Order: sequence, then C-alpha cells, then structure tokens
Amino acid sequence: MSHVPLMLDPDRVFDADPSIRRVARTLFEETATLPIVAPHGHVDPALLASDAPFPEPASLLVVPDHYLIRLLYSQGIAMESLGVPTRDGTPWEQDPRAIWRRFATHAYRFRGTPSGLWLDFELHELFGVRERLTRESADRVYDQIAERLAAPEYRPRALFDRFGIELLATTDAASDSLEHHAAIRASGWGGRVIPTFRPDALFRIAAPAWRDACDALERVTGRPVDSYAAFVDALRMRRAAFAEAGATATDHAVVEPRAAWVSESRAEALFASARAGTAIPADQEVFEAHMLMTMAQLSCEDGLVMQLHPGAWRDHNPLVAARFGPDRGADIPVATEFTRNLAPLLGAFGNDARFRLVLFTLDESTYARELAPLAGHYPALRLGPAWWFHDSVEGMLRYRERTSETATIWNTAGFNDDTRAFCSIPARHDLSRRVDATWLARQVVRHLIDLDDARHMARALAVDLVRETYRLPAPSAAPVGAH
Amino acid sequence: MSHVPLMLDPDRVFDADPSIRRVARTLFEETATLPIVAPHGHVDPALLASDAPFPEPASLLVVPDHYLIRLLYSQGIAMESLGVPTRDGTPWEQDPRAIWRRFATHAYRFRGTPSGLWLDFELHELFGVRERLTRESADRVYDQIAERLAAPEYRPRALFDRFGIELLATTDAASDSLEHHAAIRASGWGGRVIPTFRPDALFRIAAPAWRDACDALERVTGRPVDSYAAFVDALRMRRAAFAEAGATATDHAVVEPRAAWVSESRAEALFASARAGTAIPADQEVFEAHMLMTMAQLSCEDGLVMQLHPGAWRDHNPLVAARFGPDRGADIPVATEFTRNLAPLLGAFGNDARFRLVLFTLDESTYARELAPLAGHYPALRLGPAWWFHDSVEGMLRYRERTSETATIWNTAGFNDDTRAFCSIPARHDLSRRVDATWLARQVVRHLIDLDDARHMARALAVDLVRETYRLPAPSAAPVGAH
Amino acid sequence: MSHVPLMLDPDRVFDADPSIRRVARTLFEETATLPIVAPHGHVDPALLASDAPFPEPASLLVVPDHYLIRLLYSQGIAMESLGVPTRDGTPWEQDPRAIWRRFATHAYRFRGTPSGLWLDFELHELFGVRERLTRESADRVYDQIAERLAAPEYRPRALFDRFGIELLATTDAASDSLEHHAAIRASGWGGRVIPTFRPDALFRIAAPAWRDACDALERVTGRPVDSYAAFVDALRMRRAAFAEAGATATDHAVVEPRAAWVSESRAEALFASARAGTAIPADQEVFEAHMLMTMAQLSCEDGLVMQLHPGAWRDHNPLVAARFGPDRGADIPVATEFTRNLAPLLGAFGNDARFRLVLFTLDESTYARELAPLAGHYPALRLGPAWWFHDSVEGMLRYRERTSETATIWNTAGFNDDTRAFCSIPARHDLSRRVDATWLARQVVRHLIDLDDARHMARALAVDLVRETYRLPAPSAAPVGAH
Repeated sequence: MSHVPLMLDPDRVFDADPSIRRVARTLFEETATLPIVAPHGHVDPALLASDAPFPEPASLLVVPDHYLIRLLYSQGIAMESLGVPTRDGTPWEQDPRAIWRRFATHAYRFRGTPSGLWLDFELHELFGVRERLTRESADRVYDQIAERLAAPEYRPRALFDRFGIELLATTDAASDSLEHHAAIRASGWGGRVIPTFRPDALFRIAAPAWRDACDALERVTGRPVDSYAAFVDALRMRRAAFAEAGATATDHAVVEPRAAWVSESRAEALFASARAGTAIPADQEVFEAHMLMTMAQLSCEDGLVMQLHPGAWRDHNPLVAARFGPDRGADIPVATEFTRNLAPLLGAFGNDARFRLVLFTLDESTYARELAPLAGHYPALRLGPAWWFHDSVEGMLRYRERTSETATIWNTAGFNDDTRAFCSIPARHDLSRRVDATWLARQVVRHLIDLDDARHMARALAVDLVRETYRLPAPSAAPVGAH
Repeated sequence: MSHVPLMLDPDRVFDADPSIRRVARTLFEETATLPIVAPHGHVDPALLASDAPFPEPASLLVVPDHYLIRLLYSQGIAMESLGVPTRDGTPWEQDPRAIWRRFATHAYRFRGTPSGLWLDFELHELFGVRERLTRESADRVYDQIAERLAAPEYRPRALFDRFGIELLATTDAASDSLEHHAAIRASGWGGRVIPTFRPDALFRIAAPAWRDACDALERVTGRPVDSYAAFVDALRMRRAAFAEAGATATDHAVVEPRAAWVSESRAEALFASARAGTAIPADQEVFEAHMLMTMAQLSCEDGLVMQLHPGAWRDHNPLVAARFGPDRGADIPVATEFTRNLAPLLGAFGNDARFRLVLFTLDESTYARELAPLAGHYPALRLGPAWWFHDSVEGMLRYRERTSETATIWNTAGFNDDTRAFCSIPARHDLSRRVDATWLARQVVRHLIDLDDARHMARALAVDLVRETYRLPAPSAAPVGAH
Repeated sequence: MSHVPLMLDPDRVFDADPSIRRVARTLFEETATLPIVAPHGHVDPALLASDAPFPEPASLLVVPDHYLIRLLYSQGIAMESLGVPTRDGTPWEQDPRAIWRRFATHAYRFRGTPSGLWLDFELHELFGVRERLTRESADRVYDQIAERLAAPEYRPRALFDRFGIELLATTDAASDSLEHHAAIRASGWGGRVIPTFRPDALFRIAAPAWRDACDALERVTGRPVDSYAAFVDALRMRRAAFAEAGATATDHAVVEPRAAWVSESRAEALFASARAGTAIPADQEVFEAHMLMTMAQLSCEDGLVMQLHPGAWRDHNPLVAARFGPDRGADIPVATEFTRNLAPLLGAFGNDARFRLVLFTLDESTYARELAPLAGHYPALRLGPAWWFHDSVEGMLRYRERTSETATIWNTAGFNDDTRAFCSIPARHDLSRRVDATWLARQVVRHLIDLDDARHMARALAVDLVRETYRLPAPSAAPVGAH
C-alpha cells in the first residue's frame, strides 16, 4: 500500500520566475494572516446557530457540493451513486463510506481545478491529512476526517474562530424569519454573522413558486400583500428588518440585467396578474426590470448595498432538475449585456453617493468591454470579484488583467468566497490572496508599480475594499444588532 | 548566396523560464513518440487508395492550402498568380516553379503563424531542408523537395507509416460511394483509414446544390427519396454503410447551432418544399435545427459520435467565390450561442450514455462562458480542441486555460488536426503536444498539479482521450471493416 | 518631508524572465529612437498654429484629460472640484493649484494604469521631475512644471521637434475651415501636421446638431446642400480640400458598423426628412449604413484611407452630459459585430487595390473571431491598433496575441496614439514600442520566430506599417501642401 504524500507547497500558485516568486511571497506574507471578511456567500446560518457537530465526511464534503457533483456526473457517474437525494423515488446511495470511496476513486479528475485545490487545502490544513485522496487511501482519509469531526474544536463556531472570520454574510430569502441570525446574536457567541436580503423569488411573477413566496411575505410581515403598493411596503419593511439584523446588502439574480421603470399603474397591473396566476414570462421580464429600479431606489433610501448576479440560466438539464431538483450543477451562463441594459439604472442612481451597486458577471467578454469602463466612471458602481466558474486561478488572473487598467482595483469589491461549503472558506481566501499576490508581483517586476504600491494594493484586495464596499462596521465596533 | 540556416530548436514552443522548460521537456518526451490518432480531418482518401506519388512542391504545399492562399491574397498577391484555378476563364499561373518562387518571396510573412511553423517542420523533418525558404533559396528548396517526392518512400502510404499514424478519419459526403475506403481495405495495406459521415449538403434545403445532393443520395441508396420519411430512412442506411466501412463519427457544420424538433408533418412539408425547389432560408434554418435533433437521435441508436462545427460564415467574399469557388480562405467566424441553442438537444440526449457529442467553436468567448460549463455537466458532451484559426500556439493555450478549470481535460476530445494537407499531419500533432506540455508544465511549477498528474494528462491529451471520445477500436484490434 | 523618488526603469514593461528581457531590450533599442509617426489623434491644430506657451500644469495635464477625470469621478471626486467647467451654472474650481493638489492626493489610484505610466513618463522625461506626485509633493511638482512651461523650449513647436514627430494627423469636422493647418503650412515651420476628414456629424440625421453641421457644410463649400446629390457633391469637395491640405485619411465613428446601400431615391428621401427635421433614429441607422458605403466608394476614387471606429455608446451618463457636456469619460463600449455588418462593404470594395479600410474595435472578443480572419483575407483591410481602453500594457498584449497568428502584423496598421494630450505623445509611443518588444521577445525565446525576424517586425510595428497603411508621403518628400 503506497501512500502518495499530500503536500501544500508554500509557493503554490506563484509564477515560476524567481523574481516574480520572491515578490509574490513578500506580498502574500502581508495578507496571509489578515482576517477573513466574507460579505457574500451561502452558508446556512442554522449551522452556526445550532453549532451542532458536522456529520461524516461524505455529507460534509461531497454530497452538497454541486461543483464536485456536476463534474463527476459529466464523467458518467450517476448522481444517485453519490448520495444525491432524488425526488422521483429512485433510490440513492445511503452509505457515506461508499459515497466517499466513489468520490476518492475519481478525485484525480479534479487535479488542477479550483475544487481540487480547495479540497487539498481542507484535507491538509483542516483535517491534517498527509496523503493524497485516492481509491487506495479513501478509507484511511475517511477515518481521519471522521475522527476529527467528532472533536469539539471541529464544531462550526470553533472553526469560525479558528478560520479568523471577521464577518460572514449569509444569503436569505426576503421572507426569511432570520431566526437563526437572532439565535446567533442571542447566544452570546461573538462571531459576526449577518444576513443578506434576496427577494428574487418575489420578482419571478410567472414562476409557479411565486404564490408561495408571496404568501410567506404576508406571513412574515403580518400584512396583506394584495397590491403593488402593499408589495413595495412589505419589501421596505423586510429590508428594514434585515438591516436591523445586521444586513448591509441585498442580492439579486436575473438572467438579463435589464433595469427599466414602468408606470405605477403598469406595475399594479403586473402585480395583479401575478396574484391571479396569469402572469407570463414576458410580464416577468418587465416586472423584474422594474423591480431592479425599485431596489436601487430603496438602496438610496436605506443604504443597503445592492448586488447583481446576472447571466446564469438555471436548471439547464430538465432530467436532472426533475429527478434531483435545483442547484445540482446544471446552471449554464449566457452572454450578458450591461451597457444598454443598465443605462436607466445607472443614469438614475449611478451618481448618487447613497447608492452602491456591486456587479458580477459570468461573461468574461464584458470585463474589459463594459464592466471596467462602467466602473471606471460611475461613482456608485463597484465590480464584484471573478464569480463562480471564474473563481479559479486563471479566471481570477483574467479578471484582474482585464479590469484593472481601466477600472483600477479601487473600483472593485475585493474578494467574495460565495460558498455554501463552510469548511472551504479559508481555502478560497488563501487561493484568492495568492493569485492577487502573483498578479501584483508580475507588475512589480515589470516596473509598472513599485513594491510599496503592491503592498498597499494587496491589503486593499484582501480586506479593505471588502469592508469599504459593503459598508461593513469596523471590526472593533459593537457587535451587529446591538445598535 | 547566403544560406540562412533552417533549424528546429528542440525546445521550441516551451516557455523560456528554465523550470517550466525543464518540465515541458520531460512531458513532451512522454508524448513525442506516441502514435498519431487523427479522428477528424479532410485528407482525400483517394490519395491513400491510389498511393500515387505526390506531384511537385507547389501543388503539394501551396495551391491547395487555403491558410497560405488567404494570407498571401490579403497582402495583395493575386490568387491567379499562385496557381489557384479560376472558374471564370481568367488565366492562372501554370508554372509550379513560378508559383513556388512567389510563395518563397513572401514566406517571411508567415513567421510566427501556425502555417509558418508547420511549413518549417515539414521542410526540415520531412524533406530534409536545412535552409530557410526565401526568394533566394526558392529554387534550391524546390529541387530538393521535388527530388524527394520522386522516391518511393515519399508515397502516401509510406509516409502514413513513417508518420506513425494509428488511424486517420476522412470526412465524406453522405452520398459518397466510399469506394476509396473500400479500395484501401481491399489493398491489403494495413493502414487504418476510416470515413466520417457528413450530410450537411442534404440539410441545406434552400441551397441550389440541394437537389444534386438528394439525387446522389437516391443513387447511392438505390431508393427513391421522395418524402421526409424516406429521407430519414436513407440517412439511416448511409450511416450504417459508413459504420460498416469503419466510421465511428458524423460531422455537422451549421452557422448557428440551433437544435429543435418540429412535428413530423412540418418536417414532411419542409422536405416537400425542398423537393419543389421552393424552400427559403428560413425553412432551411428550421429544417437544419430539426435534423440536428434527428442526427442526435440516430447517434443514440447506432452509436456514431456526433461532431458539431458551427459558426463559420462560408464564402464571405463574393468576388473570390465567383472566380475561385469555395474554400479559398474567405470563411469568417460569427459569434455563436450554445446555451440556449443546444438546450433542446442536450435536454433530450445529453444524459444518454449511448450518445456522444463533440462540440467545436470559432468563438473563443464561449469557451469559459458556455462550453466548459456545459461539458462540465452533461455526460454526453466532449469539447473538441481549438479549431481552425485557433489551432495555433496562443489559440491552444487560450483554449486550455479557459476550459480546463471548469470542464477538466477529461471532458475534452484530445487533438484533431482537421487538415486536408496530409504532409502537415505530423507538424500539427508535434505543435499540439508541445503546447500541451508547456501548459501542463506551467501548472506543475506553480504546484497546481504534480509531475505524475501532468504525465498522465499529457498522454491522455495526446492519444487516450481521442481514442475514448471517438470510440475508436483499440490499436491491437482487428482491422476496420473486418467485424 | 519625504521625497519618494520617481524613477523610470530602463527595463520597464519587459517580462521578468532574463532571456525574454535581454531580447526585449535588444528589440527596443531598434525602435526607441525611431521617429514618431502619428496618423490618428485629436491634438488641436490651433496649438501648433499659434505656438502659444502652455498655461499652468492643471489645465495642461488634468482638466482636459477625460481618462483622469473619469477615474477620479468614479472614486467620488466631483468634476467641479477638478476644474471641469459646468454648463448649468454650478460653480467649478478656478484655482489651478487647488485642482493640482486634489489630483496629486489621488494620483496613487492611477498606479499600474496607462494614465499613470504616461504621467510618470511626462513628469520624468519632459519636466525633469524626480519625485513621485503625491499630496505631499504636489506643490513642488507644480512649481517645477510651471517653471518649465514658461521656457521657450516648452512651446508646442519646440516640443514637436524635440519629440521627434515625423508627422501628426489631427481629426477635423468635415466643415472645418482647416485655417489652422493653413497657418501652420504658411508659417515656414517645418513640422508636418495634416488633417483627417471626419464627417460623422453630417450622417447623424436624427440628432439635433445635424442642422448646424449641414449649415456649416453649406458655408464652407459656398453651395446649397439641399438634396442628397448636393450633399454627396459637397462631401466630395471637402474630401478634396482635405487632401489638398495634406490629409491621407478619413475617420468614421458609429455605434454599429453597419454598411449597406439604399437606393438613390431612398437616400434622397432620408436626406429630405433630415432637412425637414423629421428624421428618426431608425432613419439615421439606415442613412449611416448607406454613407459608410458611399465613403468607401469615394475612398476608391480619391485614395483617402478610411478609418472606422465603431462600438462606443457616447454619453452614457445623462447627468454628466447635462452638466459637463460630452467627452467627460462616460463613453461606454458595446458588443460589436463585424462579419455580417461589413459583408456588403467588403464584398463591394474589399478586393479593390485603391481602397484601404482601417478597422478599430472596443470589443476584444472580435479580435480573434472576426477581425483577424477578415484582415487575413481581404486585401483592402488593415487592423488598427488596440484602441482607447485597450491601449494599455495588457490590452496591447492581448491584441497582438489574438490577431497576429491569423492576420499577421503585416495586416495591421502599426500604432496610433489617438490622443488629444499633446505632451503624452512620446509616452504613448514609448509604451507601445516596449510592449511590442516584449511580445516579440516572448516569441524569440520560444523559437517561434528568430531574432532577425523580430527586429524586422519591431521596426515595422513602430514606423513602417504606419507609413504604408496611411499612404503617408516618405519623410524625405516635399512638405505637405506643396504638391
């Protein structure tokens, strides 16, 4: 039985050229131990509210990770065999060790991908694994992780502290009770966990789920939502409740980032058609575009930072959606247009000092063409980091290379880990900081910036720009919710 | 008379950094001597059926190469003067040596292009030329090549063996008699040459050439093709005949990769309009989209791998098309959309283990945005290599950098040389393997993958993925057609 | 008071790798002292006609530079506070030293941007500044520049000579009197300054400013422009007047690069609607597309090189446009299509040896997909250099990497500085030549081209291709206007 050692090279990610590597190391030393500020992600707040121990390795690291599941599926491995629960009664694998072995057998397919790099970091740094995950080592690695998970220092709050997380924002439906956030604050534990207001479901008036979302909004506000005016009032109430719970931002996902006002009467008519269940997709497009304008207007009023995540066509694979539900790795990007689509929104609010919009994209062709010029002009606009598929070594380098000369880093929002995988947070920030160190070092050695500039920029990218963009309270301030 | 020496540096293509170069060399040593598997290209099978000697240098290396012709034309050199035959009676150069001299005079314009690199490889490795091709050396180089071409070891089959070609797939019209393939098999020569089923002409129902294509289909099947149902039956028969002749794949070229069913009755009506000569371009679009679905369905039945080459607007230059005909270097790419266009096809067949689709693109903006996410999810999908204009050093590097982190190499199809220039085959595979070695070495030195991973991946990219993707019989298996 | 030294490293921009750097240095030595040929830009010819001294630093370097203004504005600094004059009566900063201090305070935000690199070059090379511009050094740097500007050797013509400018083309409205160009020629000063014919305002028939442009055309030609036929005659006269004044080129800016003929009667009707003030945007689109065809036709007749700059959506920010007018850094690119849009124009004129079209783009996704294949085929076509936002270190590298393998440098137009900032001209050419040296060196060390090729190409990119593309008289020829 051969153990292939698992090692994390201290110079990983840095360019091979010795002069670049030397500078990159210096820059990374500046940021490696800075706190983690995580203003956008999808960790379940219940995790930190309950602080229950994590279960076994497969359900922690494999089953819920749609990055892993989609790639294994693409290579012909059935989702059922990886423990993904079905909706249609097809049986699925229940044995975590069998799932883990299946994953380990194919782990080599992740070499060189972000998922592979994150996994190696987690195994090595978090669980102390010192051999590579292979079919042969699967059981030993499983046992080692399982043993660690049983220890109190592997509980979520302990890890939160160990990870050096200064702040973690979750993403929550507009009608969410925020009970977990309340529980966290009430617990006396010092970790700062804040919600983010995400009302998408309420704007999709042609979707079957709209009615439920609207009913939930009525319940949580305790008021009838029977008109467009009442709807906007309810949204305003919820935004206030989120802010009271510490939220500093909202988040909005659309396919096309259209933003355009309709008249109040048209808005009422669209809302009425939604209530009647007669809204069609074309109605929804108009309504969503109008609601983006409305959200921007409310952001001017209440100061919540607006995030826009456009361009993902959700659930591209009908078979997978029918059998396994959403978020199984079948969301596929589409080409996205910003210059024309956002003109009304930026024209109305882009010069307003109260407003802040953080834009993301899955269409890299817009980086240099549209996003950097927009962010390099409008004071309200910041560019979110390389997102999703592009949150990778080459993807982050492309993002920096294509946005920085026009927009500068000062119009970007620092890093977001955007993850639902709590244990991967340190791995993602480590990777991002290494990439930024390399990108800056490449400029230093070419004498485009000097080392002091680069140090300043490295710290800004790691922490300062995040705090400033998301209007986060300074770390020494009172705990959230205490104001 | 100064001879400028022609040298092929053993480290060509590899990055300058010594640590990257060292690893790249190691990786290239793994693949340099592996056999050539060529699953997609445009070599004329008559070449290998007749095994006649190649004629002189100009008609071998210049006149038929639209890569060379287009660039010389763009620089103001008349196609007639390069020996390209006209259709309108304009006289064209008949003297091969004059053509060769003209080409040699401008050969410097190809420096740094793939054509230039391939040419140098062919001159050096195949013809033993040791001086650069210039106006001054033109005649000497011509004579040397001409002398070699007269020798028996420069006949096509001898070169096929010398090149180490394990398998060569040609591309053939649906109504092709496949007589050359039969002749090759009957000859007793051991070279494996298989056809590929390309029915494009039959789907272009608004094109003047459609009628001829349909008549040819009737002749080769010996049956009337007077209804849509008969048409599909004829296609099924031809696919079976191709498979019998060793084919493992089909190939489809469209401008937009639309795929969508129409009803059987609509299909019959469209076919009837084609027969009546009244089909218009809008009819053709609908018919082509329907036929892509049909081809995918038939692939599920007969196991032929489906290749899709979309996005080339053919014959952009009407003057060149009128005077010289098609394939003269005037095909220009257009932006291409996959996520929406292919949703019906992938939704219907993308999860089917019997189906395999190899996607190509001329629109690099789709690599990271659409193609890698699609290939990183659908089990039936593989990405073809960097195609045509992008089959170049920088083009191949961009392809790897933008697809690998999301799709991984395991969802790609290895390399295709896609060439009609038989003598350029080794040059193209050499270049591709060098690029892959560099790309992998860059990851090794950054500790993103380790050397053993890289070795495994290099071999996969060179040979294994091609065999697996195209369902090619193992090299030790019985000769094609013998089953 | 700490002085942070300002240094320009002799190896700036070159890659860190020692072998690349060594070759890049060698190549840059070939081109560093070559003359500057500037065939496209926006310097005001009055500057060189009057040869008046430049005023103080702020109005020379800050206020008119929309690259600087837009980025400072994006960071929340009011345009008024930077001395940008308002149209709505809002007061603006009048004190140049206050403007300069404000700029200096934020100068660090430009580190690593083209503006920052150009500024450092100007400060160091032109004004002899040896400390970095910061809040702290602002006054000292201001005083030093102000002192220099007062000296006779800092007058525009003296700088023109010192910069080594062989030729400078300005950009001028079709109805411009060209009086400044006449004054320059009449002055006896030897500097070659030529106009460029830019008739855009006359083609925007739905714009309120069209009437004024048409009236100006009537005045300058001394003829009524009351029909489409008269309009084309007037354009023909003006093109001749520009050519007489030394112009060798025209320039055309459109959002979409559509080119398509309409009938003569349709053209007359569109023109009549313009005269009547009833033309709508859809009319303008058709008219602009028709006029591009007309301009190409006239270029065949008079030999003026046609430049096309598509894809900028002007004045995206209505608030800035209303308060400060156009050209304040709020022009945002849009995705641009060339293959289909230009088919009629290239089909009609692309094979004509009398015609030359220089194409620019703000949409980098078209480099490899559309522009390089088009330029690699049509003899009339040349690609303009990386434009505007993309005239940067990474932007120029991307341009070369994506166009050269398909189009070759021989189908490109060399470098354009495209600047209205006269003092930045040497900085821009220096940067461009350094980038080209690096790009070529990367190929030399990878043995894709050899050093002699690279030397030849470096000189071609710096000077030869510009002269040839723009049909510029050889430097030893008679002064312009003397023919």
